[in-house]
Amino acid sequence: MAVQWSRGGPDLLVAVDRGAGALGAQIQDQLRTAIRDARLGAGERLPSSRRLAELLGVGRGTVVDVYQQLLAEGYLEAAVGSGTRVASIPSSAAATGHDEGVHPVRPGSARPVDFEYGVPDLRTVPLTDWSWAVSKATQTLPTAALGDEDLPGSRHLREVVTAYHRRVRAGCATARDAVVVSGFRQGLTFTLAALARHGLRRIALEDPGPRDHDLIARRAGLEAVPVPVDGSGVDVGRLRESGARVVLLTPAHQCPTGVALSPSRRRDLIAWADEVDGVILEDDYDAEFRYDRQPVGSLQGLSPARVIALGSVSKTLAPAIRLGWVLAPARFVAGIIEEKRLGSRGAPGLDQEALALLMETGRFDRHLRRMREIYRGRRDVLAAEVDRAFGPGRLRGLAAGCHALLQLPDRSSERAVAATAATMGVRVNPLGHYRFAGGGDPEGPRHAPALVLGFGNVDEQQIRSGIGTLARAVERQADEAEDPDATAARPARS
Amino acid sequence: MAVQWSRGGPDLLVAVDRGAGALGAQIQDQLRTAIRDARLGAGERLPSSRRLAELLGVGRGTVVDVYQQLLAEGYLEAAVGSGTRVASIPSSAAATGHDEGVHPVRPGSARPVDFEYGVPDLRTVPLTDWSWAVSKATQTLPTAALGDEDLPGSRHLREVVTAYHRRVRAGCATARDAVVVSGFRQGLTFTLAALARHGLRRIALEDPGPRDHDLIARRAGLEAVPVPVDGSGVDVGRLRESGARVVLLTPAHQCPTGVALSPSRRRDLIAWADEVDGVILEDDYDAEFRYDRQPVGSLQGLSPARVIALGSVSKTLAPAIRLGWVLAPARFVAGIIEEKRLGSRGAPGLDQEALALLMETGRFDRHLRRMREIYRGRRDVLAAEVDRAFGPGRLRGLAAGCHALLQLPDRSSERAVAATAATMGVRVNPLGHYRFAGGGDPEGPRHAPALVLGFGNVDEQQIRSGIGTLARAVERQADEAEDPDATAARPARS
Repeated sequence: MAVQWSRGGPDLLVAVDRGAGALGAQIQDQLRTAIRDARLGAGERLPSSRRLAELLGVGRGTVVDVYQQLLAEGYLEAAVGSGTRVASIPSSAAATGHDEGVHPVRPGSARPVDFEYGVPDLRTVPLTDWSWAVSKATQTLPTAALGDEDLPGSRHLREVVTAYHRRVRAGCATARDAVVVSGFRQGLTFTLAALARHGLRRIALEDPGPRDHDLIARRAGLEAVPVPVDGSGVDVGRLRESGARVVLLTPAHQCPTGVALSPSRRRDLIAWADEVDGVILEDDYDAEFRYDRQPVGSLQGLSPARVIALGSVSKTLAPAIRLGWVLAPARFVAGIIEEKRLGSRGAPGLDQEALALLMETGRFDRHLRRMREIYRGRRDVLAAEVDRAFGPGRLRGLAAGCHALLQLPDRSSERAVAATAATMGVRVNPLGHYRFAGGGDPEGPRHAPALVLGFGNVDEQQIRSGIGTLARAVERQADEAEDPDATAARPARS
Repeated sequence: MAVQWSRGGPDLLVAVDRGAGALGAQIQDQLRTAIRDARLGAGERLPSSRRLAELLGVGRGTVVDVYQQLLAEGYLEAAVGSGTRVASIPSSAAATGHDEGVHPVRPGSARPVDFEYGVPDLRTVPLTDWSWAVSKATQTLPTAALGDEDLPGSRHLREVVTAYHRRVRAGCATARDAVVVSGFRQGLTFTLAALARHGLRRIALEDPGPRDHDLIARRAGLEAVPVPVDGSGVDVGRLRESGARVVLLTPAHQCPTGVALSPSRRRDLIAWADEVDGVILEDDYDAEFRYDRQPVGSLQGLSPARVIALGSVSKTLAPAIRLGWVLAPARFVAGIIEEKRLGSRGAPGLDQEALALLMETGRFDRHLRRMREIYRGRRDVLAAEVDRAFGPGRLRGLAAGCHALLQLPDRSSERAVAATAATMGVRVNPLGHYRFAGGGDPEGPRHAPALVLGFGNVDEQQIRSGIGTLARAVERQADEAEDPDATAARPARS
């Protein structure tokens, strides 16, 4: 069924197929595509949600959800009194590190708790499905595919992964834009080397941001400069001043602050990229797990000519699977493939086929749904426990992903608290570990003390005991700061 | 049972355990170890094979075989009239590329034949064993191992691989010397980057030699220089003149000439490395497949402080498995691991465990035995067919591995023959493709025309038809060179 507005709305076809289910998703996809293809131009006013709902014969809530999603993704903008309009998307149309523990945890009588950042739940890895998929791959993979792989990676996997990215991440890449890699870091290494050969010299990194990316950038021959992150994500003004033409971002759930890049920042960022003929590297980490609404779409979908999206299954399946992808504009694909050819020849062919089968048969989505519920439960427990032990308003970045930021009392030393917690069997990283390391002062410009709490690989019971321990660690550290001789253990606060 | 010489031989203990079988291997291992540990010093004369056989109560042939093996590996030397002596091993005590096809093969009515270099038999990959091993790994791998791997790679695999390398390749590395990588190229990339950070600036590459290694070296920040290869392997005199302190070699079966590095060259090479405080990178490619005697041992065993050995299962199992290892002296291990940490985080944990299980349970060895017989059969057919079609003495480098060099008639153009063969459904690489590409002339200094025949992934019937086609291609190309207008197909020679 096709609906066309004559007045009071864009001259737009939106077809709703009632047999195909998920009406909201259908509307959303079509609006997004129309904006991308400039069939809906910047500034065009959309019908009110009520009117569009009537026109399409769907519930108004469905349309409200669609608009909110597209607002969050930067396709639409809303101004008081002027309704919802198509945002100005420039015409053309980030990175994760696990970190080595710094404080060795001395397990006490209680079960140790590891709030390490970036580790998914390892007890729920779908090993039976994986084993099935590898076995199936050994039976179905053509003999020739057992040799050196096609340079960009398995065609089958590239098709499946880009379809997934289009469907779940609102991307718009196809198999020919994709290069299979062995995970985020390998993708980043190849991409940065290719960009350096393209003449790009300086890369801006989020500060705070994922660790080691400065080292990786320098190895690729790029100069790394920090750009601050605030409550809306990366500061695009400061990015503009940095002189960099490449930026590496974690827009869906900033590492480590947990902030999602705001809609206006998303647009500013793409405008910046167009101005400087720049490149945005999107680390799509944690994007699958969003709890209040569906994940904000990939920047890649918003500006495919400017964005290189990097993804992996390290967080969705397990780091040990070691498969990822780079989705790049056409002008960079050959360069990335050449780095891959010389640097590693690629990822295991059987594993690539196995992952394609896992995704294609719905097993991957089923696992994600299951994990989303598990993580949501952990997040709720974490929020409640932190409220109880530290008071309200202390936790940031909980809308998505598997980590959050715990603000400590102002005069705490995050390092001392982490060190104290380690002696009590709880491992946690201070925020300072994620500050840009290029400068002299390891903590860089001052920041309010905070701890990065990864809750992917701790169960609810561990979260309860771990947060209690952290509260005691804060108290103990505060006491010791007042009285350095105090060494006796303090009673728990709760 | 321990035997000790009092006079007329070294003061050496050789214990033969008759219950353990493989007496020759026992004697060989113990002599090798004694020489390595300097319990047998350079120049010491060994008992005659007859006398040692008597002393140990074994057949003389056994001892002759042991001596010949150790001569080939460079541990012993033989001079006319002075018997067998311990060679002077300096006190301290390489690289493979598949190549893109250049001539697209136009398949005719006959089955196309692909003499591509470096591809193992893909129809006999032990997929059932692999599937079993992955399934087993999903059941037995500890949960924590599903996270990011230990930086050097799975401890289990490092133990199993180094035990294999000690047993089959006469190496002497242990798990702490090993870094697991995703194949030869990745190991080379990490190693070269680590060496560059160590202050090494120039690397010598075999000419002819594996392709792309100059590109890989330059990406790591090293200057690449060619060193010629002759009938005994790399020219150590020219290496000395090159000013390089790093050399990359394929000593077991030179790529592409098939020459095994001679015993005296092995010693010269290590002496060179000691002189210049240099490093030998040993590409242990093709080493498992030797047809006339057991494989010549790894250089790593001869000079563990100077040699970095790189191996993979790309030739022994399949390229699609994508696992390999670097065995390095202690002073380089941390640097290689750091490159790995930043560049890729490593290889899939489940695959690593699967390979360890495959090796540990004897399945890997069983596969190698099976493949050795298959490849031996192909080699014999290849030799017979080339003799028949081209006359005797045309084939070089057949003692080991899965490729050989076919010398063409002097005035042939190897490129033209390869191009003609491609139109007839046979893909083969001219020797010129393996010449060092740094210079201006793509063929570098002149060499006699030759083709590199990989026979790993062609069956005996394909070899027969392929060699026949090559003979016709040579004839046709010769005719066309005489009479450029001749285009009609010529009758086959045989």
